[in-house]
Amino acid sequence: MKRISCEVVAVGTELLLGQIVDTNSSWIGEQLALSGIDSFFQTKVGDNPERIKSVLRQALNRSDYVIVCGGLGPTQDDLTRDMIAEVMGVELRLRDDLVEKIASMFSGRNRRMPENNLRQAMVPEGAEPLAVMPGTAPGLKAPIGGKTIYAVPGVPWEMKQMVTSCIIPDIRTEAGLTSIIRSKTLRTWGDSESGLAEKLSNDIERLDQEGTATIAFLASGIEGLKIRITAKGDSEEKVNAILEAEAKKVSRTIGDEIIFSHNDQSMESTIIQLCRSQGLSLGVAESMTGGLIASRITSHSGSSDVFKGGIIPYANEVKHAVLHVADGPAVSKVTVEQMAKSVCEVLNCDVSVAISGNAGPTAMEDEVGRVWMATSVDGKVESFTIKWPFDRDRVRQFTTISVLNALRLRLSNRQ
Amino acid sequence: MKRISCEVVAVGTELLLGQIVDTNSSWIGEQLALSGIDSFFQTKVGDNPERIKSVLRQALNRSDYVIVCGGLGPTQDDLTRDMIAEVMGVELRLRDDLVEKIASMFSGRNRRMPENNLRQAMVPEGAEPLAVMPGTAPGLKAPIGGKTIYAVPGVPWEMKQMVTSCIIPDIRTEAGLTSIIRSKTLRTWGDSESGLAEKLSNDIERLDQEGTATIAFLASGIEGLKIRITAKGDSEEKVNAILEAEAKKVSRTIGDEIIFSHNDQSMESTIIQLCRSQGLSLGVAESMTGGLIASRITSHSGSSDVFKGGIIPYANEVKHAVLHVADGPAVSKVTVEQMAKSVCEVLNCDVSVAISGNAGPTAMEDEVGRVWMATSVDGKVESFTIKWPFDRDRVRQFTTISVLNALRLRLSNRQ
Repeated sequence: MKRISCEVVAVGTELLLGQIVDTNSSWIGEQLALSGIDSFFQTKVGDNPERIKSVLRQALNRSDYVIVCGGLGPTQDDLTRDMIAEVMGVELRLRDDLVEKIASMFSGRNRRMPENNLRQAMVPEGAEPLAVMPGTAPGLKAPIGGKTIYAVPGVPWEMKQMVTSCIIPDIRTEAGLTSIIRSKTLRTWGDSESGLAEKLSNDIERLDQEGTATIAFLASGIEGLKIRITAKGDSEEKVNAILEAEAKKVSRTIGDEIIFSHNDQSMESTIIQLCRSQGLSLGVAESMTGGLIASRITSHSGSSDVFKGGIIPYANEVKHAVLHVADGPAVSKVTVEQMAKSVCEVLNCDVSVAISGNAGPTAMEDEVGRVWMATSVDGKVESFTIKWPFDRDRVRQFTTISVLNALRLRLSNRQ
Repeated sequence: MKRISCEVVAVGTELLLGQIVDTNSSWIGEQLALSGIDSFFQTKVGDNPERIKSVLRQALNRSDYVIVCGGLGPTQDDLTRDMIAEVMGVELRLRDDLVEKIASMFSGRNRRMPENNLRQAMVPEGAEPLAVMPGTAPGLKAPIGGKTIYAVPGVPWEMKQMVTSCIIPDIRTEAGLTSIIRSKTLRTWGDSESGLAEKLSNDIERLDQEGTATIAFLASGIEGLKIRITAKGDSEEKVNAILEAEAKKVSRTIGDEIIFSHNDQSMESTIIQLCRSQGLSLGVAESMTGGLIASRITSHSGSSDVFKGGIIPYANEVKHAVLHVADGPAVSKVTVEQMAKSVCEVLNCDVSVAISGNAGPTAMEDEVGRVWMATSVDGKVESFTIKWPFDRDRVRQFTTISVLNALRLRLSNRQ
């Protein structure tokens, strides 16, 4: 099979100045990889005519396809349309159909189309606007000497729709890539990347030889380690069967305990699901994490089905007054267990997690990084302690996922 | 004065695959801009010998300096050292001083240096290791035909130290850039970028002509709009005087009310400072934001000086039981005002913020995006409502900064 390559060019002086991080190119790179299209270079260039042209010419030299991202807006700084026309050696033409489309978008919002936006309806002769047009900036497909430049706006949601529903299918069709590529992501907590790689080394080797699927590890730090299984085949059905079979083998090898999602879900979503399926209501008592756990849970729509609320007893007097914690050291087994127990009573909920610790940077009566965590399920409280070697932010983040993981294990075993 | 240009090359297949977003290049780009060094291109390339060489050669062709980031680790995949040697047309030599330095880092942690790490002590003939070496990967300075390649590891904290304390001073010295460049960032909430640009247009024009300083707007979304004033001069004293004078003019023009920090601080930090200086303790009652406000406050060390804690009455029964809210609509003026009042009593604190709203995606008894916010200061409660046209995440984020801004204004006027 012919290998097809596509490179990405991001246009915008603000990208070079570091005022915006170029996440668009990373996202496009990932989509290309998942679609079986090679991508060897990504370039950022400022809003400068000569430099944009030189980058486009070079990209056409060394890749089959080029996706240019950004510079399609209505202002004089938006040069991508003009530079593509110059590289093609053609003129820009005003397209009446695009004028109409853009004008109707403005009128739909009861606004008049500014004169400037007419620039967005200009298309290089021989190029075509992309069929999908979520905003006022049309995408472009421009054929040049047997190669193709696609232009998409820098606005992420507009760009993503165009890449997913126009550009990638288009490249795959032209290149005769008919195979279907799908992936499945297992999310884990509790083992290192090298630990997992060692355990899965036989599977990885076998897949290398069979060529039906690949296993990749994606470290997502405080979100745990992702194991991504990717399979290729000629029907949706076959590919899914391979993914399911390989995922089962991986689970068997590394043990189901450390897998918190078979479907790329966050730890919080897993907790919400477990509570919902068992008809349990949830509460939190967070001292050191100070609302981080509750905030993560409530970031998911549907959390209100199970989440009753939380108490953040940051000052010790609040631990005493609201959660009936007795005098004594705040970062301790007895305090955190009382917090987990009381919060179930105060909020009238079935299960809870509780945290007390010192995230630093200053050691108080406790060493920095020392955290006590507790879970309460069916009135039974369990607790454990960890001394993290991290900075404040990571102590709070690692504590959050650790205590939720402890609750997950208890709820899973309860079923 | 001669313009000097430096481009950035990031090496790593994982960057092209989108497994890691390349924040290093953005950071380096920002440092170069703040140091008066032009940067016109940034390139990402995978771990492939020929492609790395082609990118380096091209970068040397079109820029005076090149910073290569990544590929200096101990494994066979780490090709940067070798490729620089090939581009220079020289051999790699093992440097005994580096072997010793790396070995001592391992022995300091009671670990034996793996054989692999010897690769990191290899330096192309004619190149020199950088003086600063925070980890086991030495940086490199490689002169090639009147131009220079600097190589730094991809680990951000190692890279940053090398760029800040070696590379940028080095380039500035060689290029004869003796002027000092400093900037000052004002953070604002409550006006749009175009609104601020219009108000400041006279100042921006004047500075364009005087050439002593520039004003740039950095949109940071839910964190508000930053106004960055950058000045250049031949002494620290003069530059700071310009910055202070221009910042004063900007405050006068746009009004002090919308500036929440003169020193690039977050809204939460400003609140903590205001409470601390006035000897006030703080509490929160967050329904819709579900811990986000408390989490943001407690992410700052020193928040325990003023932050007593919070109640998250996510379920309505918790609003009744813990915060004594009467029956009636949950998203309402009367509910949110009672929440702000009660939380001061329950947590025994002086000031509070309270939130009740519907972040979506489902309309309940209230429309999606409708939020009531209240602040309590010295026992006096004030409230307001906004209907946000955003998704769940942004409704929560915009609500957080809006209610904290309302508290900021009340505390500032109280002083």
